[in-house]
Amino acid sequence: MDKVELLARLKPEIALVDQTMQSDLENLASKGFIPSNLVEVLEHALFNGGKRIRPLLCILTAELCGNSSKTIYSLAIAFEYLHVATLLHDDVIDHADIRRGRPAANTIFGLAPTILAGDFLHARSMYLVGTLGGKRSLELICSATEAMVAGEFLQIANTRNFNQAEKDYFAVINGKTALFIGAVCETGGIFAGAGNREIEALKIYGANLGKAFQIRDDLLDYLGDHAKTGKSVGNDFREGKMTLPLIHALKTAGKTERNFLLDLLKGDKSRRSAEFENAKHIIAKNSGFEYGRQLAEKLIAAGIAGLHIFTAEHNEQLIATLTGLAGYVIHRDK
Amino acid sequence: MDKVELLARLKPEIALVDQTMQSDLENLASKGFIPSNLVEVLEHALFNGGKRIRPLLCILTAELCGNSSKTIYSLAIAFEYLHVATLLHDDVIDHADIRRGRPAANTIFGLAPTILAGDFLHARSMYLVGTLGGKRSLELICSATEAMVAGEFLQIANTRNFNQAEKDYFAVINGKTALFIGAVCETGGIFAGAGNREIEALKIYGANLGKAFQIRDDLLDYLGDHAKTGKSVGNDFREGKMTLPLIHALKTAGKTERNFLLDLLKGDKSRRSAEFENAKHIIAKNSGFEYGRQLAEKLIAAGIAGLHIFTAEHNEQLIATLTGLAGYVIHRDK
Repeated sequence: MDKVELLARLKPEIALVDQTMQSDLENLASKGFIPSNLVEVLEHALFNGGKRIRPLLCILTAELCGNSSKTIYSLAIAFEYLHVATLLHDDVIDHADIRRGRPAANTIFGLAPTILAGDFLHARSMYLVGTLGGKRSLELICSATEAMVAGEFLQIANTRNFNQAEKDYFAVINGKTALFIGAVCETGGIFAGAGNREIEALKIYGANLGKAFQIRDDLLDYLGDHAKTGKSVGNDFREGKMTLPLIHALKTAGKTERNFLLDLLKGDKSRRSAEFENAKHIIAKNSGFEYGRQLAEKLIAAGIAGLHIFTAEHNEQLIATLTGLAGYVIHRDK
Repeated sequence: MDKVELLARLKPEIALVDQTMQSDLENLASKGFIPSNLVEVLEHALFNGGKRIRPLLCILTAELCGNSSKTIYSLAIAFEYLHVATLLHDDVIDHADIRRGRPAANTIFGLAPTILAGDFLHARSMYLVGTLGGKRSLELICSATEAMVAGEFLQIANTRNFNQAEKDYFAVINGKTALFIGAVCETGGIFAGAGNREIEALKIYGANLGKAFQIRDDLLDYLGDHAKTGKSVGNDFREGKMTLPLIHALKTAGKTERNFLLDLLKGDKSRRSAEFENAKHIIAKNSGFEYGRQLAEKLIAAGIAGLHIFTAEHNEQLIATLTGLAGYVIHRDK
């Protein structure tokens, strides 16, 4: 399924997700549960051209398991809410000025409304999961949210550890991204009443997609086009952040190149900034980027392979869509 | 029940609450779910001499409805987690240096760990409520958390509204405090399998306690002793915050005094600071503080009166404890 076909397939679903979020806010506002200044922050944060990958995964995986209930949309938006809650808090933490090409909530509404709106979406998300997804889904999503925070702390703890192994990197991205996306896909299956074997396959598909997504993000940080990603290139290296390409290059490089990289990492930011192109060259030479690319491909392939237990003919189109989504994740340039 | 008796009654419960939180963290850490740098922030935030009023209310109300399961402690800590999550985010929002006489988490661990530890406690709280309290409790607690945020936004929206009526003040404190404490008490009843009439009485007791708690807080902001409260006196007035004593005084004062107060509120902070003692005198003269005191007493009395549906003899001691707790709330000086 090419990108045009994929978008055509997903566009109506995305529109329904957006409508469901809009109705949810309108419903809360009309009952007087949320004042208009809160609605304003929530609308800014939610309706900004987000790709809606998490709700889409929930909807598609439920459909793959035979779901035909429209309630899935109300459950699915819980995952966009949770995602946007973390983005709002990230904006505060990173002192971000820009989010998806627009001023970050933080810069428009200030500190208190940004943090609090994140807390609101967090609670609303748990409410929807608990009431519509049931106890098992709530457990999964709460645990994944706890793991997200734990992943951030692990990353902080690893900050100046230049001897990181690949497994340290994966421990962080599992917590920060993969467990949550895996849990979203599991929840789709649970909602549709799927069996454990099916739910397990969805979990692996989602978790692998999450890992590949993060690897792609880390590759784009070195190789992306600022005009497309909207992020400054080389940020991770400048901050001394240990991501997969760098970890792999440090492992495979010869002594001279390894020491060059280590010296930069131990030194100060301005030198890393000045030497970014040289560092990038060394990482490329030692297959850091190629290794990341291949690993992402492998993860996606394994995730998709697992979906072949859903053999029914009417599932072909759905599996093609999930394959297309996964392909998008590892080939995206923004 | 006097304060000494009350403390003697509650001390073992408080110790059990603390132990349960400690075990929960140790359990999560031993399974490798939370890294040590996260444990450090959580321990700092949780073990700081908090009064544990929310968990105590959950335990006592459940007991009043016949509960004898020890699981109640694991459910009860969810409410301390949620409370501490909001304190962590408040510390960031208020740029607080000090919390309960110690450096605020913010100043020790920095912005990211403080916000994220709050998010962790939030998720963990919902996990415990959803798994141990069931769907009905989860709905209550999520809605109360949403209302907490909505209350903060309402307060922001009301900031420069000097014509506030009492009902505007109560809309804010209901959201910020009363609904949540009411929900904690309801949850105690739900956990114990109480009937709707009992649960309703607990909710009113809790919500009234919450309102009285907030009124007392707002009185202490004018009348408290800095050495005891640990907060600077007159903060609300300096910030132009419209709390009950001020709202009442503006309603009852004659034209001259009313205009004096309004001019101060419309003017700048330094003038409010300089004129604080005069403003306080006018509020006192117009029964602003006395009115608050009486309203808090009335709310507490009504809440306690409702508990008399729990007539069984073995409940006498429990009702005395809940009465003592309520008394503590409106007579506390810190």
